Amino acid sequence: MEIKKVTVAGGGVLGAQIAYAAAFHGFDVTIWGRSEGSIERAKPRINKVYETYTKELELAPRYIGAEFPNYPRSFFDDVKDINLEKIEELKKNNEKAYKDLKYTVDLEEAFADCDLVIEAIAEKVDEKRAFYEKIKDILKDDAILASNSSTFMPSMLKDFTGNKERFLHLHFANNIHRQNLAEVMGHDTTSKEVIDTVAQFARDIGMYPAIIKKENPGYILNSILVPLLDAALALYGDDIAEPKDIDMDWKIGSGSPKGPFEMIDIIGITTVINVTSTREDAKDPSSPMGKALKKLKEREAKGLKGIETGEGFYKYK
Amino acid sequence: MEIKKVTVAGGGVLGAQIAYAAAFHGFDVTIWGRSEGSIERAKPRINKVYETYTKELELAPRYIGAEFPNYPRSFFDDVKDINLEKIEELKKNNEKAYKDLKYTVDLEEAFADCDLVIEAIAEKVDEKRAFYEKIKDILKDDAILASNSSTFMPSMLKDFTGNKERFLHLHFANNIHRQNLAEVMGHDTTSKEVIDTVAQFARDIGMYPAIIKKENPGYILNSILVPLLDAALALYGDDIAEPKDIDMDWKIGSGSPKGPFEMIDIIGITTVINVTSTREDAKDPSSPMGKALKKLKEREAKGLKGIETGEGFYKYK
Repeated sequence: MEIKKVTVAGGGVLGAQIAYAAAFHGFDVTIWGRSEGSIERAKPRINKVYETYTKELELAPRYIGAEFPNYPRSFFDDVKDINLEKIEELKKNNEKAYKDLKYTVDLEEAFADCDLVIEAIAEKVDEKRAFYEKIKDILKDDAILASNSSTFMPSMLKDFTGNKERFLHLHFANNIHRQNLAEVMGHDTTSKEVIDTVAQFARDIGMYPAIIKKENPGYILNSILVPLLDAALALYGDDIAEPKDIDMDWKIGSGSPKGPFEMIDIIGITTVINVTSTREDAKDPSSPMGKALKKLKEREAKGLKGIETGEGFYKYK
Repeated sequence: MEIKKVTVAGGGVLGAQIAYAAAFHGFDVTIWGRSEGSIERAKPRINKVYETYTKELELAPRYIGAEFPNYPRSFFDDVKDINLEKIEELKKNNEKAYKDLKYTVDLEEAFADCDLVIEAIAEKVDEKRAFYEKIKDILKDDAILASNSSTFMPSMLKDFTGNKERFLHLHFANNIHRQNLAEVMGHDTTSKEVIDTVAQFARDIGMYPAIIKKENPGYILNSILVPLLDAALALYGDDIAEPKDIDMDWKIGSGSPKGPFEMIDIIGITTVINVTSTREDAKDPSSPMGKALKKLKEREAKGLKGIETGEGFYKYK
């Protein structure tokens, strides 16, 4: 089946980015909000994405023929594709996307004839379930439903969708025009055609679709990131090395742009404490993770929570 | 104390890189080999490093004022330091280093008046111990001894050095003029002055010294890399996703230049099998790691061992 009309439910930070990326790449996109208030909050977010795209396209000529171009990967497949003509074409897409994007609070208008719903509402399982129950009788029979949920699994939601074979997760990172990753994860009875169609849609909006073949909490990215951070936290807990040296060692040794403690500053120490607290070995105060948890809590109590508070393991102006 | 004369024991790939980096940065450097044959094998390695430096310096003007310059970090502290005058100065250093580097098989000549020994001989504990016993009565009382060992701990060698307070590890990555990491790890009675002196020496040869405050197998880098690879292998063992998707997901999501399976191809599947086989959970064939180990062994049996065999998870021309 072909996707033409897309409705994004929820106009939060990520909902706005997803809706805009789809519109920019030529899809007919509607943002549905549950109230006029939520639509009014979505519009400035869309304005911000539009401004980001405008600025990126103004800067794009500098990447033409550059040796290490740091260009938006969702705009160009390859550095060889960057030329003035292509940039002008994308500028037109950008203006058209901004002009054509639709907003509605009306369920019929939003969902009656869309081919793909991307659900990006609040990360509360009851709200998501209620949403799917509310729209299931409005949708076309062959509509595809994709949730951007970060923490739930498709099997926790599928029974509320009315058409579970056509339900899956499509999970985006932040800042998706550059960090162009879309994790595609079905449950055990999602149809193969639906997975293929959604993977192709992701490609069509400039994303790399990483196919997750079985339900897996944390998708792929967090399944790797969490053990990496845990390993760094164990070194910190055991006082093997200072966070700055751990970060520099990892960055130089692996070529990664961020060290584990820079990542913790981005994630926020409170979230890291919450995740670490669930580990069995963190409950023993003499273990490396137990000692790390204690140190993290001491830093949190001092307000050193990361970028959001202006200081974490590093200072942010 | 001040380091002026440096002897590198062993002229293997890394010994040659370390000796050359020290000579390039103005130290008086001798390479000691156990036989004329080992010296003859060291010389072409030094030639190769000299050629690499020469080529890097030819390319260096392109980094002047560049936005994302991918310059050798051990040559310049910051992109702002890259200018034609500095490049000319480094070219002179390069010629001088190549010309002045000394080679000897004579123990007195190599070790009697050196301030710092960097031991980079074969990774065999008995050979290392015998080496330290052989030189301990030749060295000056205040000479510092640093081992580049990847797998042993300083406490396994210290009692053979004759002066354990002045013994520590200084562990380099490969391709050190770009991957400019030096892990500094003492044992429990290495003197603070020795650690500070060696860290400063590392800085002086363009390295970032990551200080490891307590003995830790795997230093910092491998303590983080191994759990990262294990997490990726568990996803692969459980057939959650294909290696290519795991790699792309991690690269886009984290910004890292290499995915876990690209790294496994670099490390070589046999080494990864050896390391994974020591894990308790890999002994259970129904566990994710057990299943991953089985798959790795099947690939190894087919000769898909990584870059060294031309094909691993990816093909290499």
